[in-house]
Amino acid sequence: MLRKPGLPKGTRDFGPEQMFRRNHIINKIRAVFETYGFLPLETPSLENLSVLTGKYGDEGDQLLFKILNSGDFLGKTIEEDYKQGSKEFTWKISNKGLRYDLTVPFARYVVKHQNEITFPFRRYQIQPVWRADNPQKGRYREFYQCDADIIGTNSLISDLEMVWLIHDVFKSLNLDDFLLKFSNRKIITAISEYIGVPGKASTLCVALDKLEKIGRDNVFEELIAKGMSEQSCGRLTPILEISGDNRQKLEKLKGYIGNLETGKHGIEEVSFILEIVANKKDIDLKLDFDITLARGLSYYTGTIFEVKPTTVQMGSITGGGRYDNLTGLFGLDGMSGTGISFGIDRIYDVMVELNLFPQTDLAGTKVMITNFDHNTLGFSLEVLNTLRKKGINSELYPDEAKMKKQFRYADKKGILFVAIIGPDETQRNIVSLKNMATGEQQSLTVDELIRKLS
Amino acid sequence: MLRKPGLPKGTRDFGPEQMFRRNHIINKIRAVFETYGFLPLETPSLENLSVLTGKYGDEGDQLLFKILNSGDFLGKTIEEDYKQGSKEFTWKISNKGLRYDLTVPFARYVVKHQNEITFPFRRYQIQPVWRADNPQKGRYREFYQCDADIIGTNSLISDLEMVWLIHDVFKSLNLDDFLLKFSNRKIITAISEYIGVPGKASTLCVALDKLEKIGRDNVFEELIAKGMSEQSCGRLTPILEISGDNRQKLEKLKGYIGNLETGKHGIEEVSFILEIVANKKDIDLKLDFDITLARGLSYYTGTIFEVKPTTVQMGSITGGGRYDNLTGLFGLDGMSGTGISFGIDRIYDVMVELNLFPQTDLAGTKVMITNFDHNTLGFSLEVLNTLRKKGINSELYPDEAKMKKQFRYADKKGILFVAIIGPDETQRNIVSLKNMATGEQQSLTVDELIRKLS
Repeated sequence: MLRKPGLPKGTRDFGPEQMFRRNHIINKIRAVFETYGFLPLETPSLENLSVLTGKYGDEGDQLLFKILNSGDFLGKTIEEDYKQGSKEFTWKISNKGLRYDLTVPFARYVVKHQNEITFPFRRYQIQPVWRADNPQKGRYREFYQCDADIIGTNSLISDLEMVWLIHDVFKSLNLDDFLLKFSNRKIITAISEYIGVPGKASTLCVALDKLEKIGRDNVFEELIAKGMSEQSCGRLTPILEISGDNRQKLEKLKGYIGNLETGKHGIEEVSFILEIVANKKDIDLKLDFDITLARGLSYYTGTIFEVKPTTVQMGSITGGGRYDNLTGLFGLDGMSGTGISFGIDRIYDVMVELNLFPQTDLAGTKVMITNFDHNTLGFSLEVLNTLRKKGINSELYPDEAKMKKQFRYADKKGILFVAIIGPDETQRNIVSLKNMATGEQQSLTVDELIRKLS
Repeated sequence: MLRKPGLPKGTRDFGPEQMFRRNHIINKIRAVFETYGFLPLETPSLENLSVLTGKYGDEGDQLLFKILNSGDFLGKTIEEDYKQGSKEFTWKISNKGLRYDLTVPFARYVVKHQNEITFPFRRYQIQPVWRADNPQKGRYREFYQCDADIIGTNSLISDLEMVWLIHDVFKSLNLDDFLLKFSNRKIITAISEYIGVPGKASTLCVALDKLEKIGRDNVFEELIAKGMSEQSCGRLTPILEISGDNRQKLEKLKGYIGNLETGKHGIEEVSFILEIVANKKDIDLKLDFDITLARGLSYYTGTIFEVKPTTVQMGSITGGGRYDNLTGLFGLDGMSGTGISFGIDRIYDVMVELNLFPQTDLAGTKVMITNFDHNTLGFSLEVLNTLRKKGINSELYPDEAKMKKQFRYADKKGILFVAIIGPDETQRNIVSLKNMATGEQQSLTVDELIRKLS
């Protein structure tokens, strides 16, 4: 006997139970997306490497799955190419890669279809993405993203909608224990000015992004290694120490960056969202204005946010923000947008830990009809077809096996009802319906059966 | 300005309109699958090449998309490897590929999870597959398959269910103009015995598969080139000339292969299906017993079938059959199964040509609320949230633009209702609802608005 065939590292099969649960999450998210007026979009799994490369930083480029060109791919190379090493050689033998996220393909789509789209364009997209990352808890090589974006407006109302969307999605999933951290990239920009390193906002971002993980001393060390002065770090210290509720933090921050142009805008934008959310009576949201929130990706320019579960150890399960020029990557400028991405694989893991999935009927089948012999087959098939036509999930046991075996199958699959059709039932045009949970059994006409199971 | 970014050959974006239509097809198929008691399954897009290679013939191996190993993939090669050429070199730098169909991953899944599965196992799977084929009409490099299989029984009832499934799926899609060709591999096997080349059934299959395309003379030429005698071809001729209705063809065929063991079985199996389908009153199905039907794939052993549209020029849109030992590829013998695959990309193309898609609401959004100014914003947001909470797809125009511009947006998107909320409406706690199709406008309280749009 051969070894059982394995799966590539970081990939998974989703059997019926996982599928029911994954579909539960996806359907809930999709339903909320649709009440928000987002339209569905799907893009190919394969994109040209020219589209993907250089969009996710050096590390991202490393993590792209690249597709070998078809046919005699070496035919277009020479030995010199081979000797140049993997990095250079890749370009000679591969021109396509697997989608790394849904944001870059979306930007590519918007540029390609700009003349057909009515802006502001609200789209959602639910598809797998692939990253050649080292698998660990909550990190897979193939995983789904559920994205929604509004592109073609810089209105803060769209940012606000993302906050509400988070509220509505997690409410519909019964997932209450989460913290929504948010801030604004303009604040980081203003801070970099305030501490005397204008233009170094992105260095500051990258370092602050690690604050929680590596601590303040190490962040300072990194900043100094990147050429920042001790003095700058000194000016940064009190800002990192700002505490209090959202309003208080905002007031204190004003004292540092409130007079800078970018700082003023950043604070106004944060205020707008805080105020409207706070004024909304029926929203129950742990909203935390976190001055040090940075978010890894370089394209954010305004509001940024991320969601973390509070009672389960897990990284960010949702994140997003405003970008002012994502489509500029493909030559279309002036398209501000805001977007959000729900990571359903992590949400799944959190919901398993918190036991939040509803009881699902894993049988799929509501009623199994027994298979007695060829004399009962005609009537059994008639009943089967009538049930299916009424939308009742049904199956006929395919083999003329012993009744005990047929019942064991229904039991193992968790099928609630078994319709027994033997010679007697066939003659009388009835079925004997057994409830597998209670053991109860009753004789029913086909009409009665349908009424009972509908 | 950069050139608009392109897509890899044979791949497509699916914008909102295509998505609504694709989802229409997928939802209908899924609904039928579920009434038949099939359970959902998804497998990874990536599979180890050891799982994929050698399962689809030499040509299939060529068409597999292979993934370049991550990192320094050349580090594990030597110059000699490079000189061996593309075919050999592939194995050194790639160990994963993209799913080519859903059948082999399903077999791999069944073997891997054999101890958790209750057999007979009924599963459905709706996912994309990839083939590095030359794109042409109805042929893409990334396309979806919708598969259903019953594995772990050799009952003919399961084959019969596939015929009904075809009927129910196409009925639910309103696609009536199709022909369901079916036959049985055992008949080809028996014919090969009858014409004196036992054991050459697969050669006969491959040649007969081209009958429609290249004609009988060329088929004979191919058979002779493959070592068959003129005499064998002579004995084959009258079988290929058998005509009449299904019953008549079966009777005539009996005269040739009815005394051979395999022939007898094949004819019995075909009769069983013909008889039950013919006896079913409410089924309207053009069922054609086609003795020359061969189907390309080598793993079929019993019933085989395929569906072609009759009024549109298009290859097979659905196909399948019984296989006796698919899981044997991975070391698990004795698992007979039967399966079907719906090609939704071709079904989509056929339905476009026949104009079979229902009128869809492409707006997504049912009502757009105008954005007057910051004084009306509070009430507008309140109405927006109330509508969404009631499940009514709604959006607020994000910018305080001129009314004309806001209306133009709603019009272009095809949004049917615009709710005007200006200072007057805000003060009186009402909205002015305009029907964009009729031009009608009425003042409504929020409760009345909800009732109107629900």
